[in-house]
Amino acid sequence: MARTSAFLLLSALLSVFAPVDALWPQPRDITTGSSALKLSGGFDITIAGSVHNAPLDLHQAVERANAQLRSDKLERLVVGRGDADKGALSKAKTLSKLTLSLEKGATAHTITSEAQKPIEARDEAYVLDVPADGSGATLTANSTLGLFRGLVTFGQLWYQSGSTTYSIEAPIHIKDSPAYPYRGYMLDTARNYFPVSDIKRAIDAMSWVKINQFHWHIVDSQSFPLEVPGFLELSQKGAYASSMVYTAKDVQDVVSYAGARGIDVLVEIDTPGHTSVISKSHPEHIACAEATPWATFANEPPAGQLRLTSNETTQFTADLLVAVSKLFPSTMFSTGGDEINANCYDQDPETQKALNATGQTFLQALDSFTQVSHAALKKAGKTPVVWEEMVLSFNVTLAPETITLVWISSADVQAVAQKGFKLIHAASDYFYLDCGGGGWVGANPDGNSWCDPFKTWQKSYSFDPVANLTADQAKLVLGGQHLLWTEQSSPSNLDPISWPRAASSAELFWTGPGQNISTVLPRLHDLSFRLQQRGIHTIPLQPLWCALRPGACDLTA
Amino acid sequence: MARTSAFLLLSALLSVFAPVDALWPQPRDITTGSSALKLSGGFDITIAGSVHNAPLDLHQAVERANAQLRSDKLERLVVGRGDADKGALSKAKTLSKLTLSLEKGATAHTITSEAQKPIEARDEAYVLDVPADGSGATLTANSTLGLFRGLVTFGQLWYQSGSTTYSIEAPIHIKDSPAYPYRGYMLDTARNYFPVSDIKRAIDAMSWVKINQFHWHIVDSQSFPLEVPGFLELSQKGAYASSMVYTAKDVQDVVSYAGARGIDVLVEIDTPGHTSVISKSHPEHIACAEATPWATFANEPPAGQLRLTSNETTQFTADLLVAVSKLFPSTMFSTGGDEINANCYDQDPETQKALNATGQTFLQALDSFTQVSHAALKKAGKTPVVWEEMVLSFNVTLAPETITLVWISSADVQAVAQKGFKLIHAASDYFYLDCGGGGWVGANPDGNSWCDPFKTWQKSYSFDPVANLTADQAKLVLGGQHLLWTEQSSPSNLDPISWPRAASSAELFWTGPGQNISTVLPRLHDLSFRLQQRGIHTIPLQPLWCALRPGACDLTA
Repeated sequence: MARTSAFLLLSALLSVFAPVDALWPQPRDITTGSSALKLSGGFDITIAGSVHNAPLDLHQAVERANAQLRSDKLERLVVGRGDADKGALSKAKTLSKLTLSLEKGATAHTITSEAQKPIEARDEAYVLDVPADGSGATLTANSTLGLFRGLVTFGQLWYQSGSTTYSIEAPIHIKDSPAYPYRGYMLDTARNYFPVSDIKRAIDAMSWVKINQFHWHIVDSQSFPLEVPGFLELSQKGAYASSMVYTAKDVQDVVSYAGARGIDVLVEIDTPGHTSVISKSHPEHIACAEATPWATFANEPPAGQLRLTSNETTQFTADLLVAVSKLFPSTMFSTGGDEINANCYDQDPETQKALNATGQTFLQALDSFTQVSHAALKKAGKTPVVWEEMVLSFNVTLAPETITLVWISSADVQAVAQKGFKLIHAASDYFYLDCGGGGWVGANPDGNSWCDPFKTWQKSYSFDPVANLTADQAKLVLGGQHLLWTEQSSPSNLDPISWPRAASSAELFWTGPGQNISTVLPRLHDLSFRLQQRGIHTIPLQPLWCALRPGACDLTA
Repeated sequence: MARTSAFLLLSALLSVFAPVDALWPQPRDITTGSSALKLSGGFDITIAGSVHNAPLDLHQAVERANAQLRSDKLERLVVGRGDADKGALSKAKTLSKLTLSLEKGATAHTITSEAQKPIEARDEAYVLDVPADGSGATLTANSTLGLFRGLVTFGQLWYQSGSTTYSIEAPIHIKDSPAYPYRGYMLDTARNYFPVSDIKRAIDAMSWVKINQFHWHIVDSQSFPLEVPGFLELSQKGAYASSMVYTAKDVQDVVSYAGARGIDVLVEIDTPGHTSVISKSHPEHIACAEATPWATFANEPPAGQLRLTSNETTQFTADLLVAVSKLFPSTMFSTGGDEINANCYDQDPETQKALNATGQTFLQALDSFTQVSHAALKKAGKTPVVWEEMVLSFNVTLAPETITLVWISSADVQAVAQKGFKLIHAASDYFYLDCGGGGWVGANPDGNSWCDPFKTWQKSYSFDPVANLTADQAKLVLGGQHLLWTEQSSPSNLDPISWPRAASSAELFWTGPGQNISTVLPRLHDLSFRLQQRGIHTIPLQPLWCALRPGACDLTA
């Protein structure tokens, strides 16, 4: 029996079918059968001879995929676990190989270079065929990046019972490609520091749900953990400790680890706000540095913003951004631009003097300041990314290719689109992982987090990326991401606060919106347990009793 | 300069003093000086010769305390960390020993046996003297349990900088004892399973904040992970897996691990509700087992309650409780009694038949059922503990010594006290660690957790244990606890969801209410970082920038 990829039909079947496949994100076009199929003991993934000069990162991806097939040990989430499948397995055929090949005429570049292409130029499509008759499985794509996505899918097809690795849904045919080109995850490493090993674990998790963009909010007012060639004083004076610095070598390590896993790294140096820490080494560039009471000068402590009226500060900023941009091969670079506090500049004598001297307003100065930075970045080959205020509040002159991150509210998406800018969904009311965990400013006994309540996976999963947009405006939506601001996070809770929740946006922006949320939980359980097998400390979304009985804990059950 | 333990004065001083001591809970009577004092390289904790037959668990506690002084490596949370103290340390005297002794006439029993005494008979008081002049420090108490509490305090007095372990607040004189005899932490191991190693880590954390009661909600409707001698079928059929069972040996291991750390284990076998899983081995005892739709038969899936009208079921229950009680030396035993669903019994033909035959109402049957269980437990030497419905909703006949856990709302405390029952604060509106994390029942796209919002540490810390109680009623308050229900918890988030939050009730019920919440955060940071040094994955409560600058991130700063 074959079933189609039509989602309503799929949903209907899932409620009858005890078996659920463990794919996440759900491929956009899939047909499956109902035959059991086992991997042979010597099962191997190989790259076809027709792929000339297969790159090292593809070979390594194949090696990891081969190893995971042996180490995942994911049992089926049903009562009795794998026992339920013993009968079917006794008659199962055996699969002994998967062969990867590129479409005719395609050239084998590294996964890394394919992943680091401009966001809309990346080709992540693939076709995966797993016959039920024991003949070899095939994975084809136009790019090594597509092959990598297909490998991740292949790795999710299998359950284990005893020493048998198997599927009960062969034959499987998948033709897949993402609905949106940008599927991200943002981590703030400035409020609290995360060692490289934790970032790599986060990248692993991202890659296993086909996230293709790591948005690294690497520095902020609280600390400057990035070693920038030519600006070593920033981290020397501004990191929390010398052991809490990302060296240029660390950055290269993270970037290449991500690249080999199909992920581009979008770095953010937030300007002109969120820069207090620069005052530690360059007091001349920062207005209202650590001014008190902080709440009148900034949205969070410590206060401090770049003196955007100063030519020296403007040049310093442009030079810094360009120096940082050289560490990151991505074609995008975020200059931030959120939460600029006007009072900070109102109270800064130097800024006021400059404004008076030139007759400029604060907004005119911000416009000039930003244009210098963006021009320098453009010269360095980068497309600027900004937070929504730059478009909606400050009306800064921005190049038409500028990409906007909508964070304050999903209600602001329409206004950004109306201005004609490409945009990334990152709204706090759907995608902030830190909401609902209690306020963190001190002497605030009754404070809950500003963006209460907690954003459940169901909430982000049910987001509509094109709500209130015209068809033309909808084309401006590049995708979206979950975000973790780390005022109350550290390696201690990085995994449980993120996973499997952040996988909900990964599927939303890969598979597309409109899935039936009531039926996806069993697949999300499978993903969560598989991530655990691979070292990600995901939380359980339900008691195991429920996870073993798809649907039994539904409100209507 | 000496400062007294008057809390308002202390608060005032803390706001001037950069240094904050790292004690948690705050001792009830403390004076400190402002001299630096270093531990000598050969520093040792010893038990005075006058302590005859010092028990093994005291020797082991001393050994652990000695080791922690070397391994904690907690730097002071100020800008520049230990560097700020270099001047003071250059002139510091050296402390070379701490001597433990019992008050004259006291006998050295094991910590374990002292910890397992009836709740109001435990003696946790101690006196700790750390002179500034280099002469030996002393710790005295009436019991080994008091010595253990004092050892924990001593272990929190020290910071490390380079290879120097030191205090900057000598001399230190502490005379301490708890405000409330019951300070607990509850863990549910039935919704999701926790290996013994995780439970032991939780016990470690409890012991370091002087929690003296581990309330182990060990089984529930979803799984029965407890191996009970004489009732092996319950775990064989009812555990999630054979690897997810606490054997009698595991229980003994947990109980003695806790006992050696001054913690008694209160086990709970919830009856007659929350027992669905018993139907796996004893379908005859369970009404409405896994009946659907579950929401009409139970507060959570799966439905199922003991057939309290059946003599066989009543006897089975009493026998089971007694068999379990033999595994746990505590003088208390919780029979639960929450969330009994009347409809389950209304729809159960056997229950209705029995009620009709005897002319009893459901509440009369519940009364008889409970009396049989409680009489059997009393015979086994146990004081029953029940959830509040047994007192407030079902008006069950309970022995006057019965202890009530108030969970539904802190507003119910007064009513329980009016009925004259001793009570433990466990209210969901203050102490539930799982609130605010999203709903877990399936097919519920908009669901947040029923007890939203998240209960911040500030919320529980500001709880008033005697609100709305007369002076006589206030005497019924034994203490309180945080609780973790684990529908969405596992070893992955056990630590970050619990710590340091659960320490707030530990201090509330040790030190007593009414502390100035605005000034405690620096101490809580110290505790959190020390727990991290000891392997507990606590979350940061603020950006490190704030933790290093006490008060700087206060709303008013």
